[in-house]
Amino acid sequence: MKVLLANPNATEAITDACAVLARAAAAPTTEIVPWTNREGPPVVDSFYGDYVAGRPLAMRLAALAPGPDAVVLAGFGNYGTGAVKEVLEIPVVGLAEASMAFATPLCHRFAIITTSPRMIAYTEDLVQASGFAARCATVRAVDLPPVAAGEPPADEVVASLLTEVAAARASTGVDLVILGGARLSPYAAALRRHTTLAVVEPVACAVAMAESLVRIGLAQSKAGKYALPPRPLGEYG
Amino acid sequence: MKVLLANPNATEAITDACAVLARAAAAPTTEIVPWTNREGPPVVDSFYGDYVAGRPLAMRLAALAPGPDAVVLAGFGNYGTGAVKEVLEIPVVGLAEASMAFATPLCHRFAIITTSPRMIAYTEDLVQASGFAARCATVRAVDLPPVAAGEPPADEVVASLLTEVAAARASTGVDLVILGGARLSPYAAALRRHTTLAVVEPVACAVAMAESLVRIGLAQSKAGKYALPPRPLGEYG
Amino acid sequence: MKVLLANPNATEAITDACAVLARAAAAPTTEIVPWTNREGPPVVDSFYGDYVAGRPLAMRLAALAPGPDAVVLAGFGNYGTGAVKEVLEIPVVGLAEASMAFATPLCHRFAIITTSPRMIAYTEDLVQASGFAARCATVRAVDLPPVAAGEPPADEVVASLLTEVAAARASTGVDLVILGGARLSPYAAALRRHTTLAVVEPVACAVAMAESLVRIGLAQSKAGKYALPPRPLGEYG
Amino acid sequence: MKVLLANPNATEAITDACAVLARAAAAPTTEIVPWTNREGPPVVDSFYGDYVAGRPLAMRLAALAPGPDAVVLAGFGNYGTGAVKEVLEIPVVGLAEASMAFATPLCHRFAIITTSPRMIAYTEDLVQASGFAARCATVRAVDLPPVAAGEPPADEVVASLLTEVAAARASTGVDLVILGGARLSPYAAALRRHTTLAVVEPVACAVAMAESLVRIGLAQSKAGKYALPPRPLGEYG
Amino acid sequence: MKVLLANPNATEAITDACAVLARAAAAPTTEIVPWTNREGPPVVDSFYGDYVAGRPLAMRLAALAPGPDAVVLAGFGNYGTGAVKEVLEIPVVGLAEASMAFATPLCHRFAIITTSPRMIAYTEDLVQASGFAARCATVRAVDLPPVAAGEPPADEVVASLLTEVAAARASTGVDLVILGGARLSPYAAALRRHTTLAVVEPVACAVAMAESLVRIGLAQSKAGKYALPPRPLGEYG
Amino acid sequence: MKVLLANPNATEAITDACAVLARAAAAPTTEIVPWTNREGPPVVDSFYGDYVAGRPLAMRLAALAPGPDAVVLAGFGNYGTGAVKEVLEIPVVGLAEASMAFATPLCHRFAIITTSPRMIAYTEDLVQASGFAARCATVRAVDLPPVAAGEPPADEVVASLLTEVAAARASTGVDLVILGGARLSPYAAALRRHTTLAVVEPVACAVAMAESLVRIGLAQSKAGKYALPPRPLGEYG
Repeated sequence: MKVLLANPNATEAITDACAVLARAAAAPTTEIVPWTNREGPPVVDSFYGDYVAGRPLAMRLAALAPGPDAVVLAGFGNYGTGAVKEVLEIPVVGLAEASMAFATPLCHRFAIITTSPRMIAYTEDLVQASGFAARCATVRAVDLPPVAAGEPPADEVVASLLTEVAAARASTGVDLVILGGARLSPYAAALRRHTTLAVVEPVACAVAMAESLVRIGLAQSKAGKYALPPRPLGEYG
Repeated sequence: MKVLLANPNATEAITDACAVLARAAAAPTTEIVPWTNREGPPVVDSFYGDYVAGRPLAMRLAALAPGPDAVVLAGFGNYGTGAVKEVLEIPVVGLAEASMAFATPLCHRFAIITTSPRMIAYTEDLVQASGFAARCATVRAVDLPPVAAGEPPADEVVASLLTEVAAARASTGVDLVILGGARLSPYAAALRRHTTLAVVEPVACAVAMAESLVRIGLAQSKAGKYALPPRPLGEYG
Repeated sequence: MKVLLANPNATEAITDACAVLARAAAAPTTEIVPWTNREGPPVVDSFYGDYVAGRPLAMRLAALAPGPDAVVLAGFGNYGTGAVKEVLEIPVVGLAEASMAFATPLCHRFAIITTSPRMIAYTEDLVQASGFAARCATVRAVDLPPVAAGEPPADEVVASLLTEVAAARASTGVDLVILGGARLSPYAAALRRHTTLAVVEPVACAVAMAESLVRIGLAQSKAGKYALPPRPLGEYG
Repeated sequence: MKVLLANPNATEAITDACAVLARAAAAPTTEIVPWTNREGPPVVDSFYGDYVAGRPLAMRLAALAPGPDAVVLAGFGNYGTGAVKEVLEIPVVGLAEASMAFATPLCHRFAIITTSPRMIAYTEDLVQASGFAARCATVRAVDLPPVAAGEPPADEVVASLLTEVAAARASTGVDLVILGGARLSPYAAALRRHTTLAVVEPVACAVAMAESLVRIGLAQSKAGKYALPPRPLGEYG
Repeated sequence: MKVLLANPNATEAITDACAVLARAAAAPTTEIVPWTNREGPPVVDSFYGDYVAGRPLAMRLAALAPGPDAVVLAGFGNYGTGAVKEVLEIPVVGLAEASMAFATPLCHRFAIITTSPRMIAYTEDLVQASGFAARCATVRAVDLPPVAAGEPPADEVVASLLTEVAAARASTGVDLVILGGARLSPYAAALRRHTTLAVVEPVACAVAMAESLVRIGLAQSKAGKYALPPRPLGEYG
Repeated sequence: MKVLLANPNATEAITDACAVLARAAAAPTTEIVPWTNREGPPVVDSFYGDYVAGRPLAMRLAALAPGPDAVVLAGFGNYGTGAVKEVLEIPVVGLAEASMAFATPLCHRFAIITTSPRMIAYTEDLVQASGFAARCATVRAVDLPPVAAGEPPADEVVASLLTEVAAARASTGVDLVILGGARLSPYAAALRRHTTLAVVEPVACAVAMAESLVRIGLAQSKAGKYALPPRPLGEYG
């Protein structure tokens, strides 16, 4: 099976890092096909970045031929997830919804740690919109430097994550944490070595969910919200 | 005061119809400046249309110079409202949020009637995201033909609206109805002649709210969710 | 247009202070007519004070002739707001609902700061009853001395407000604050000079909303909750 | 033990009917002391009636001397319940809260049937304010004639109640019904003969709860919301 | 009247301690009949303990003959409360639901203090399932030693409870506290001497509610959720 | 990988039918090991049946040696799911939570159709307890005959399911349906041929989720709610 791993932003390094995680999680018979949204922003760090990303993402994915068997949208955000679900009939899975769907049966309440303080409000909206607010006790943030600056030393990132994990647990009693940003996913393994909380890495969840949906013959329902748009796609812009 | 009336879709006829309503609602000293999102879709009728609209809408409005005193986003949807609030410091008001803000103190519970059945789910998400779900008892829809077909006879539209108003009232006891689509706004006056429920026309609400915010010196808070995006806008795409 | 500014308590000094704020917010063509509830309590500082205020407030306002074009109820509470909406057909707007209606589109989540710790529970009930709980992250309080003692030095009040604003932001991440008490309204301007959060002053919001409703031809719906009471008002007591 | 049965309205016939129910429910050692709010409205049929009732109710009950051991507020409404709880230290129990407190452990979801369609919104607000919305599936209404017209034949009232019970069950699957109005309480016994649903009569619940609270030494907490008002009661009005 | 006081765990000392509290709360004419779930666990300290307790509890109580007039389930948990309500027609009342039903009209928001940190999640689920989440502001825990170790000195327990009461009040403003575990109930009287908050002891509430239900002729509705199981009980296992 | 498929009831025919579905959904390298709860009830059709099932289910699964790699609890209910998660360290997945986790990203709102009207309340509680209430619009039921009577003709079951699907869609606009009972799962394929709504069959979802969790190295968090019970399991009963 072929799973397209679509990075909503334009930074190839993030695509590459996600592809490594995706391949580690995928079944041996699954081919992970990385794809980068070249017309998107360097990173989705705001509602503005979200909307700049979403239009070309949805337009280009709608036009892919031949198509994959499923699409994983490899960003922890919205950036037009609903639009992609509308224009495609194959399963489309976002990182946030997949990780929360897997986390919910595994814990009492979870925390999400995102990549910068300003993304907390954005992420809270995303949790609500995705239907998982009942189990999300808190959204917190580390503060990663801009993408262009390169990634900081892993130790520093893990230390920051641990600080937030501890604060989330102390204030809300969460027993599971989701890494809420593709840039944080590579640190999951290291983080697990330092905390007793379950740590959910979203790329693995989304790949597993996409594979599962293909295997058991499910995709987003075309009977309502995600039906094809009412006019030919070429007329939209 | 200058209020930009920004139609998120590309259909000038809708811009014009909204401008008529806006001018009727505005104070004599307010200048309504209509603006059409030429790179947007003919109408926002789907999540796909929403994201196609939002990117150019946010980009072009960010670049307006000299800017107006406030912006009214003249569609009953999302299409990047948060993005526009981020990039501008002047008040930015959407039709949905303004009409629900005005409706809430005026009723027990309200219904929204949107322009097509497939927009019900979209609109329910919008109500939730805007923070007004507590008072929205139901979202229902008439079924307008495509924009290109021209507007159907007013009598027919009003009759359809009345059918939905009656159904909403019978099933949920609402005492107020919001017309949830810019294409429905011109029928508000006629609808009022046939129902005892309060009828809220969103363009008037949004213009009034925008004027009010300018007058009393308020705009979206720049201390959190709607702070300027973290990098120069030119870097986004 | 004539807007009656009805202070639910009997303290003329509060009426006067509100009238100053109301006139500053009103359009030049609006006449603000101050009115004091002489049979009410010195201040609404409890549920008991609320009910003592509400009966004469509703009775006297129902009997006003000739009536104004709209009524602003100039207290941050309930004190029979629903009763006044029932007995009048012109728009009736309370401070709490108006300020929350304006705040909701401007922020991610807001805090309300009220005038004494014991009013926190009262205000939380009010937020819930008004339909705005989804966006109210916290209610906090300064601790003003009794009205009769006169107002404390402005610096002290502003410093207390700033302490609560900072605490609200630290614990809940709010990006906007509403001054939840008519006695706090005069400090809005000074508070704005010391915080980056948006500060919402309710008298201005309520006046603006009342003017807007008159202008665009809306009032509380008479088709349900706020229909005229079922018997002649003279029979009630 | 002495339990004051305080009718918030001025109609003695309703006081008398409630006293019959109260005495039937009370322990043999409990003395039911009926009290009528002579300055109140003939019936609480609106928010206006609610606030007209509440002021004298709270004022007169605060002044009772010697006081009873507990107070039952014998109307299915608000009319200043919080104010009475503030001014008294003995247990104060309203019909609505007592009946919902008893109903919650007895069912999956309950319906409330109130005395007129216009009281549905009022009652929905009351349910929310009382903290029992999670289990209240619906509020419906019969349509009693005005109090002055006398009570209609019992058969007719019971038939109307049965119609609403059946409609509530069909639409929401409730397994218990609360009679939401003191005027409906006398029909509980007859209604039970015609439905398999549990029927909760609020006067009995409130008397039982009041007796229980006295016996086990509980009353409304004086450490917060229901603390005594901050100034001497004589200063309020 | 005969009220069976059924301890869901196998520890007779807890049964005895609850019986003391029950008899102190009961009317003189009520006979409290203690019963211990001998096949249950020593204490319900986990979901595992809950399910180990529930099967024999429901089976044995279903077989009691002659039956009592009501059953109080004397543990602050679930352990098959719904199952017991199904198999019996007499009133069945659990400690948690009874104490929250009594607490709700007495306060703005309550805290529950349970017996060990791991029971916080369990108790939060219980609050939600019982329909009282709207008024429960927080669940906190002391940390009692295992039952077999005997009870620690009363002073220590009360001091631990006071620490949690103070923390609950500081963080959430609760004005009432419920002792969320049968082992904590005996400390209610001592706790009350050291706090201004209302302290609710669940055994007394449950006994009072059970007596009240018998007296006023109510029990769990047999028209839905708590109808008799569909097959003869002997077939279940 | 070895996945234990644990039927909480004692009916081997249901175990067998689930095993067929599980094997069809599993990866070729996964071994499905069926297991029947011989001490459980013939079917979980009540809270009583739930608790009768849960004790032996949790006790026997805790004692399995050598253990499988994951456990699927093959009933659409609770029956001690939390207890099993406590006593095991390998992933434990129930049908209800897995199917709702997969359904949530695929639709706007889903309906659950359960096996008998009396299980509607039970299932609504389960949805709430599992954290998925935000997207579950309605729970409806067909009315299967007792297990012992054998399964009715497939056509009849499918026709009944279609009736409920249509009613759910008409009243709430759901775009996806979950078959809420292991006895209904075999009809999923036939149902899909007659409806445009997405149909989710829970056994396949649970198997896929269990396999995914094993592959990506996740299980229920042991840092809170699902930590091992505090005493040796042998002491519980």
